[in-house]
Parts: sequence; C-alpha cells; structure tokens
Amino acid sequence: MTKKEKGAKAKLKAEAKGLRKKLKALKADVAATAPKAAKGHSVSPLAPAAFPQLPVIAGVEFATAEAGVRYRNRTDVMLVRLAPGTAIAGAFTRSATRAASVLDCQAKLRRRAPSDEGAAIIVNSGNANAFTGAAGQSAVDQVTAEVARVLGVPQKRVFSSSTGVIGEPLPHDRITAKLEELAGALSEDTIEAAARAIMTTDTFPKGAAAEIEIDGQPVRIAGIAKGSGMIAPDMATMLVYIFTDAKIAAGPLQKMVGRLTDKTFNCITVDSDTSTSDAMIVAATGKSAAPEISDMRSGPAKAFERALRTVMMDLAHQVVRDGEGATKFVEVKVTGAADAGDARRVAMAIANSPLVKTAIAGEDANWGRVVMAVGKSGAKADRDLLSIRFGKILVAEKGWRAPDYDEAETSAYMRGQELTIAVDLGLGRGRAQVWTCDLTHGYIDINADYRS
Amino acid sequence: MTKKEKGAKAKLKAEAKGLRKKLKALKADVAATAPKAAKGHSVSPLAPAAFPQLPVIAGVEFATAEAGVRYRNRTDVMLVRLAPGTAIAGAFTRSATRAASVLDCQAKLRRRAPSDEGAAIIVNSGNANAFTGAAGQSAVDQVTAEVARVLGVPQKRVFSSSTGVIGEPLPHDRITAKLEELAGALSEDTIEAAARAIMTTDTFPKGAAAEIEIDGQPVRIAGIAKGSGMIAPDMATMLVYIFTDAKIAAGPLQKMVGRLTDKTFNCITVDSDTSTSDAMIVAATGKSAAPEISDMRSGPAKAFERALRTVMMDLAHQVVRDGEGATKFVEVKVTGAADAGDARRVAMAIANSPLVKTAIAGEDANWGRVVMAVGKSGAKADRDLLSIRFGKILVAEKGWRAPDYDEAETSAYMRGQELTIAVDLGLGRGRAQVWTCDLTHGYIDINADYRS
Repeated sequence: MTKKEKGAKAKLKAEAKGLRKKLKALKADVAATAPKAAKGHSVSPLAPAAFPQLPVIAGVEFATAEAGVRYRNRTDVMLVRLAPGTAIAGAFTRSATRAASVLDCQAKLRRRAPSDEGAAIIVNSGNANAFTGAAGQSAVDQVTAEVARVLGVPQKRVFSSSTGVIGEPLPHDRITAKLEELAGALSEDTIEAAARAIMTTDTFPKGAAAEIEIDGQPVRIAGIAKGSGMIAPDMATMLVYIFTDAKIAAGPLQKMVGRLTDKTFNCITVDSDTSTSDAMIVAATGKSAAPEISDMRSGPAKAFERALRTVMMDLAHQVVRDGEGATKFVEVKVTGAADAGDARRVAMAIANSPLVKTAIAGEDANWGRVVMAVGKSGAKADRDLLSIRFGKILVAEKGWRAPDYDEAETSAYMRGQELTIAVDLGLGRGRAQVWTCDLTHGYIDINADYRS
Repeated sequence: MTKKEKGAKAKLKAEAKGLRKKLKALKADVAATAPKAAKGHSVSPLAPAAFPQLPVIAGVEFATAEAGVRYRNRTDVMLVRLAPGTAIAGAFTRSATRAASVLDCQAKLRRRAPSDEGAAIIVNSGNANAFTGAAGQSAVDQVTAEVARVLGVPQKRVFSSSTGVIGEPLPHDRITAKLEELAGALSEDTIEAAARAIMTTDTFPKGAAAEIEIDGQPVRIAGIAKGSGMIAPDMATMLVYIFTDAKIAAGPLQKMVGRLTDKTFNCITVDSDTSTSDAMIVAATGKSAAPEISDMRSGPAKAFERALRTVMMDLAHQVVRDGEGATKFVEVKVTGAADAGDARRVAMAIANSPLVKTAIAGEDANWGRVVMAVGKSGAKADRDLLSIRFGKILVAEKGWRAPDYDEAETSAYMRGQELTIAVDLGLGRGRAQVWTCDLTHGYIDINADYRS
C-alpha cells in the first residue's frame, strides 16, 4: 500500500467512526420513541412482493387486538373462531422443554374431543410462556377457559400458542381483558391482520392458499405462518395455522399433516436452533359443498394432499425467506446417498454449516466447505464418488474440482438471490431436499440484542 | 419518528452507502497489493499476553521457510526433525472427506514402523491439499519422499499436514524446493517460529508446556497448535504438535493420547464445523534421563498423563480463545444428566447454539435460550428439575426463573470476558464440560470473505 493509500484509509476510518457514532445516537433516539417491534429491521430482500390474496374459508373467523403483552402500538393477539364440525390436527416441536401451550394443545388433540362443537385458537406474540413453571400451565388454563366462556365452545376445543421471550411470566390478564372486544370483532376476511398479529422478529406477514375441485365443487385452503429465527429440524415452523373448508375427519387429517410436515417444515433450517413453542394447527371446517374425503387412496384425497402440501411448502419457504438477516434463499439437494436418512444428514449438515452459510453470504463459490460439511455429517461418503453442483454448474467430481470448472461463471451464479447446491454421493438411491438461507451480519444484529 | 428525524436518517443512509462503496474499492486495492494473511484481523482480545517460554525438548529440531504456497512475505512451511528412538502417536479428524495427508499419517501410524530410526514432520499452511483427488495423495508422497531423502529418515516415519484452502492442487514443488534450506536451518530452540509458520486465520501463535520429575529427573513437554475456525466435536484441533523427552513406547502413548483427546480437543467448539485436515501428532524422544514409563498404573505414568493433559487442555483453550471473531471465552458445565452421553449432548447443544452464542456476544443474560438448547439436544430433560447458573448466579430452577434472580447482577456478570454457563439436569450423575466462544460480526467478516 502506498503512503497516499494509507492516508486515505486512515481518513476513511475516522469518517466511518464518526458515522457509526451518529448512527448509534439516532438508533438510541428511535428506540426511545418507537416500540421494539416497530423499531424492527427492514423487510427481508427475499420477501414476496405483497401478501397474497387469500380466499375466505367458510366457518373460520378472525379478530386481532392490541393487548400490550409486551409491545405497544401493534396488534399482538389473534383469535380464531371455528364453526361446529371442524376437524383439527396438529404438529408440534419435539423439544424436551416445550412451552405450556404446546403441551396443552398436544394433550387436547390426543383426547380427540368430538368435533360437532365449535372450536377456537388464541395466539399471542411478545411472550412465549415457556419455562414459566406451574404458572405457565395456569396461564394457559385461564386464557383457554375465558375463550371457551366468551365464545361458548368447550375448553377442550380451545387451542393456544404463545411466541416471544422465554422465561417471563405471561401477563394473561391483558389477553383475557381483550376477549369480549375480540369476540365482537370476529370477521371472515381479516386473515392478513391475523398474520400480522402473530409476528415477532418477522419482517413480513406470511400467507399461502390453494384451491381444488372435487366433483365440480371448490375446496379451499388458506394458511398463515410466523417465524424467522430458531428454525431447525424437528417441526421448526414457529407458528402455522392452516384452514380449509374440506370435509375430512380428524384422524385421516392428522395422518396427512404428519406426513406432509416431514417433507415441508421439517426440511427447513435457518440457524439449527429449535423453538420450545413451534406449533401448527390445521382446521377443516367441512363447509365446502364437495363430498367428504374419506378414502385416502382416492383421487380427491390425493389432490387435497397435494394442495395442502403446496400451502405448507409455500409457508415453509416464506419462513426461510424471512430467516433472520437472510439475503439468499438456498435449496440443498442431495442424491445418491446410501439411504434417505444419510441424504437428510448430509443436506442438513450443509444447510446448517456456519462456514457454508457465511461463504454464501460472501457470494464465494467455496465448494470446499460443502465437501467439509459432507465429511462431518456422519453419513457414508466416498470422496472420489462425490459430485457437487452450484445451480447447473458442475464444480467438483471424482474427488476433485471439475475439469471444466470456471471460477468466473460460478462467482456470477453466486451473486444471485436464489441458489441451489446439489450434491450427489454416488452411492445409492437416498435423496433429500432442504431449504436454508445465508448467515449474515443481520443475524448477529438481530440476535445479539433481541431481548434487552 | 418525526419528519426531521426521518430526513436525517435518509441522509445518513445515503452517506453510509457512499462510504461503503469507497471502503469496498479501497479493500479491493489492498487485496491486490497485500498478502491475504498479512491483511489479517487484529489479535483476539482473549489471547494470552505473550507466547509462553517453552522448554527445549532434546531430540526435536525445528525449521521454517517462506515457500509461497499461497501467501507471500510470511513463513508457511515447518519442518521438524525427530531423533532416532522417538515414539509417535496421533489423533485425527473423523471426517469422511479427510485430506490426503491425514489418510497418509493414519496409515503410517497403523503400520507402526520401528521407532529406532529418525522421523520427521512437515507442515504447510495456505493449502489443505484436501479433496484434490489422486493428485493429493501423490503430492503427499512426493513431499514425504523428499523429506525422507534430505533428512535420511525412512519415508514411513515422515508425517505431513496441510492446512488452508480446500480443493486446490497443492503446489508441492514449492515445498520440496525449500527442503535443503530447511534441513540446514534446523535448530532446537525455534519452536515459536514453528508455531507461527502453521497459522492461517489464527491471530496469535499457540504454545503450552509442562514439566514433571520422575526419580528426580526432569521430563518436559512442549506443544504448539493452530486453529481458529472449523472447530467442532470429533478431534477438531486443526493442527497440534506435542513433543516430550519422556521415554514411553508408541503403544501406551497412543492409548493415553486417545483418552486425553476425548477430554480436551473433543470438548471444544467454535462453529460446529469439522475440518477435513485436523491432526495431532505427539512425539516422545526418550532423551530424558528419567526411567521409562512402562507401567501405566504407576505414579510416574499418572503424573505424565496429567502433565500431557494440561498441555493439551491449554492448547485446546487457546484455540477457542482464537475462535474466529471471539470476544468471550465460555465454559459450559453440565451435571445431573441421565448419563455422560446425554451430558455431552446438552453441553454441545448449548455451546453450538447460534442463539446462545449471539446472546453472549450481546452480553444478554438470555437464559431462555439455554433452556431452548437443552430442549433441542435430544437428551432426557425435565423442565421442572432443571437449574441454570451464569457464573455463581442461580438464574433458573424448578421450571422457572429463580426467585432471587437479579437482572442487573446477571447483566454485570455477562460483561465479563470469561463466562461459565452451568446446567444441572437433576436426573442422574452424567456430567460434561466443554468450551466455546461467542458468535460475533467478526466471525461473519472472516468467513464471508476468506477464500476470494
């Protein structure tokens, strides 16, 4: 470096220092006047252009309120009323330190209350009511009892979720105080407002829909989700609510949801951390004029399962697209593994590797780190049979860089916002597909100062 | 935010954009003229004050050279000559995509060449010679053959390591071209220079020593290590070379090294990634006047094992202290687990959790994330039996925040540079202790732009 360059660098450094100081002061100002959530982070560059137009699902009504659970000046409670006859299924975190509301939902679903009565879902953001001891369960009991009373539905058909900070007592009276107001505001066409009320560090509300016809009659599905951090294997959706007017019994619906969860929400990862509160509820009101879906091998059943899968996959991908600090959406495809388990191990090792994820953030075609991740995964692998593709570009094969590898071409590919890393292990027929995002300064910004 | 504030923010944003552009251009300039390593990152705040005074180990000589493997203007090759009679043991990465040099070392150690002849270690930084196909093994063969010829030792007693970028052919002729010069420069007291020659993203050279007496005669141990990223379970040391003048046969030495590796290097993690090149070589020259260590249950054997453990632990901790971007050194202690395996699973889940590590970076006493990590670990856990301590402060017990929990006291603790997170699961007698660092912007800086 020349003397001149050194001088220029020093000057620039001083300038940057001043700028940082100013930014800090401004940030402090903003923090003092705006609520934490609103202070927020700018919308993810991977967000869809707009919230999609979701169809009204007959038998489902929404209401939201500002209860001030933790944040002010934003909605933080969502109430959903489900018509009598609604079948309900669910999938939940497998964490050993599950939140009280998750344990309560699981217990209620296991008991399978008859679905001829009404049902409800109550969700708050701002406080996860997780690791709050006996008081946590008591809060769930009080909130669901009040919802049952206000809506006139059995308490065993009231499902609750809480998302936000762990370990702080839930100010449940702030929620119950709003229930009459919420009940009065229920409406069929406010699903977008519901999607907003359940957000925490999300930078955009998430919705998806699908429609099929059975015997010429429409069957509609509409879902919303929230989640952007603590996303990892094992039902790591954060919160997902999917509604359909299909006629289907709770038993077969539950089986379908379990199958699809493994192929959608359990295939995404942002940071390998698993929330204590992840929950998905799927509610089928049966209000469609289409006949009941009862034979699970029938065409209509398959069409419905495909449609439900589309909605779940869309929401799962949106969660990754809102991954904390994400700037790239990455699909990891593994083929040729000894079996499906090995394929998943390799895919997750790549998708969770901080070194792979930072290389992607840096737009660096560092396929060596992909090799590293394959090696550490614990799956059977043979260096000399492995091949790696970035998009359609073959970067490595036969234990080495591909002969036609072109660094410039690959680097250009890495500058894209949607990337595919494909690994073929050359051993067997096991395959897996998972989705993740890059690891950036944004992730550190958000998580090194979330609670305080 | 007022209109004025909004305007100020927009202006600042534009200013920052221009500044970032300037910085990028300057960075490109610097990259073009300065060598990558020298561009470097400032020394870790957790580094020891100085490189320790290491004792001379009779029978061990070092030499270093600037071979220009990848970097210019720095040493990048280390040669070690070991006297005839030296017993050699090792521990290596368990990656399925191990580097050629690792496979070669393992094969040579398995064959157990008689130790009455001399031996050598040759290490280069800048290129890992990993995933370089058949050419990789050929490069190892050529380098070790040349070392054997120049030093007059059998090739099967020449051990090599390479560290740096994966997937690029090793320019082995640059190394072999320096061997005569290296052989001429061998000296017993240049171990610090050797520690420097093997560095890559390390911000300080790492050394440790211990001395014991057996029958009134000194037995000395001196070791060096490199490594700061890709540090994870499974012998994730990057490179470690430990020398002793103890008289001990290769067989018992190997057993001891295996035992100690599990308690030291396999208990550290920086980013959960495992290198393809991790290797540790322990060489015992037998030049001490102390009697041979043969009965492994004897007092001298136990004293020697303790001393070796001290050196290994010290080096392992230094690797964590140089964790890429680290600003905090964190000990995670787990007790009361159902068994030792569960204890380790919980400890590693905490130590590898990006959410725990970013909270530590933000000096946020976010014990809720510790609960999350316990929950996701897969180990048996009961929310209501769990207790968590930050340092000596009890923060959570009986399924909730501790009654005397004092946020201010805990926050003050979190501002320290050395932290302990202790979790008692209240179930059994399983215990584990691992060491890690925080996850900061520095990690992203280093790894989003390492190769390019």
